Amino acid sequence: MTATDIAIVGVGKIARDQHIPSITKNDAFRLAATVSRHSEVDGVENFATIEELLEQRPDIPAVALCMPPQNRFDAAWTAIKAGRHVLLEKPPGATIAEVQALVEAARDKGVALFATWHSRYAAAVPSAKAWLAERKVESARITWKEDVRRWHPGQEWIWQPGGLGVFDPGINALSILTEILPQPVRVTSAELEFPEGRDAPIGAQLQFAGASGETVSADFDWRQTGPQTWDIDVLTNDGTLKLSSGGAEMTVDQKVVIQEADSEYDGIYARFATVVAERAIDVDLAPLVHVADAFMLGRRIAVDAFDM
Amino acid sequence: MTATDIAIVGVGKIARDQHIPSITKNDAFRLAATVSRHSEVDGVENFATIEELLEQRPDIPAVALCMPPQNRFDAAWTAIKAGRHVLLEKPPGATIAEVQALVEAARDKGVALFATWHSRYAAAVPSAKAWLAERKVESARITWKEDVRRWHPGQEWIWQPGGLGVFDPGINALSILTEILPQPVRVTSAELEFPEGRDAPIGAQLQFAGASGETVSADFDWRQTGPQTWDIDVLTNDGTLKLSSGGAEMTVDQKVVIQEADSEYDGIYARFATVVAERAIDVDLAPLVHVADAFMLGRRIAVDAFDM
Repeated sequence: MTATDIAIVGVGKIARDQHIPSITKNDAFRLAATVSRHSEVDGVENFATIEELLEQRPDIPAVALCMPPQNRFDAAWTAIKAGRHVLLEKPPGATIAEVQALVEAARDKGVALFATWHSRYAAAVPSAKAWLAERKVESARITWKEDVRRWHPGQEWIWQPGGLGVFDPGINALSILTEILPQPVRVTSAELEFPEGRDAPIGAQLQFAGASGETVSADFDWRQTGPQTWDIDVLTNDGTLKLSSGGAEMTVDQKVVIQEADSEYDGIYARFATVVAERAIDVDLAPLVHVADAFMLGRRIAVDAFDM
Repeated sequence: MTATDIAIVGVGKIARDQHIPSITKNDAFRLAATVSRHSEVDGVENFATIEELLEQRPDIPAVALCMPPQNRFDAAWTAIKAGRHVLLEKPPGATIAEVQALVEAARDKGVALFATWHSRYAAAVPSAKAWLAERKVESARITWKEDVRRWHPGQEWIWQPGGLGVFDPGINALSILTEILPQPVRVTSAELEFPEGRDAPIGAQLQFAGASGETVSADFDWRQTGPQTWDIDVLTNDGTLKLSSGGAEMTVDQKVVIQEADSEYDGIYARFATVVAERAIDVDLAPLVHVADAFMLGRRIAVDAFDM
């Protein structure tokens, strides 16, 4: 198989920590260029804008968009219109309608579009899904508590409209939930904690219900110093399942079943190779729909100002 | 044609002002029962709960759900599971996910489901759509300003989470916009004005963009005393169109083309007769998606407390 040349657009923390190492490891792709105004990768051609990349390197068939969600649509739209395959970091957009527009555009152009949800590639997620498929879910509890200062240093965009605040990590939990549950659920109530002077919430408590009476609660908090928690506990008619460390570990009735190191982005690029080969559109809006629903239905609570 | 027996669930202002008169006028339907805890219709059997209706009157094949959106899902779900055809007042639900769940359930049961958008049945909307289909839209401006005290007396649910605040009327404008524009648009920015102590906005300013560079602005305000305004102005490459009075009037280049009295709900029940006959699912989520997107992307602005 010939490697597919790919360009990374937006060379920030997630690109350096995850995308570039996973592309380097994957024979299906070759990092051929980057687009960034502030940052470069040694030995890789860089462009200041995606328009320059698309014009000067028509030979690069794929792009991975790693910039903040507020700027993602324009880049994705331009790349699709230029006939390129597109990988979107999560969340796939700042609105549902803009992602729907990208899907239509990709369909029209016959290019591949992959809206990634990296947490779905955590080691234990497929096993959790298979285990739950044979059981009746009674309830689930998501606990997603981390220290925003530690994980998002200097990233002011997360507090701006469209940055989603604590839903930026929280949507990772929702991407796992919507993957592993046998039946869909819907948000039934939400409380969103907005710090004074911020346009995005720092904490959120959600309640969900499903068609068979199952309930899910989610507690998202960005003020968690000390130990960090990314857990999903599921109670079924036949045992309890716990996903921890963001989906890398799975216990069933308190016995460890899976415990692996993070390789989420390796999984993403393995999947993207297939999506590109098949000119597929792999876009699941369910996690973003839950976030939008929580914002629409949620009660807003003012909390103390929070400094980064 | 035999008339289809129909029950109205939620006998409030909208049921009395609109649904009952339109059902009475339409030979395809016969008002066979109501469900209400607080209100009855002379000469029509009333039940306290929808469960009692469904159990005691299995001969009534259709229900129209006219209660506030926060309580609509449970009633709709129960009715669909009991094999009844369902008409939903707007908005069709408090979340996108719950409406998606209703669509799946209706499909499974083979019953009709109609998510109504009454403003789409305003007299001039079909003509506006046909006129715009042959032109290139450059920009549009929605001005939707009304007095909440006049139109929603005593309706506290509109201020509660899920009540949508000024988007309750605003979504009517968005239902027209999404019907008449030849191409979809997406919310690009939003400002939402929340009165102190209220969980829903009293004003909203939205910006939209479309694929061909067209822009749309929307100004929703619930503090408009005096003349009330429900206008959509569209500038095209070949003339300007104005819909006013909520879609009942249309002018092209300032010449009146259509000017009719309101008959929106007559149109809704004419359509519902077809939906029932075809066991169809007529659910367009586009207006609700724009509202959810505006809540997710919107900047929240605190404004003065507002008493009803």
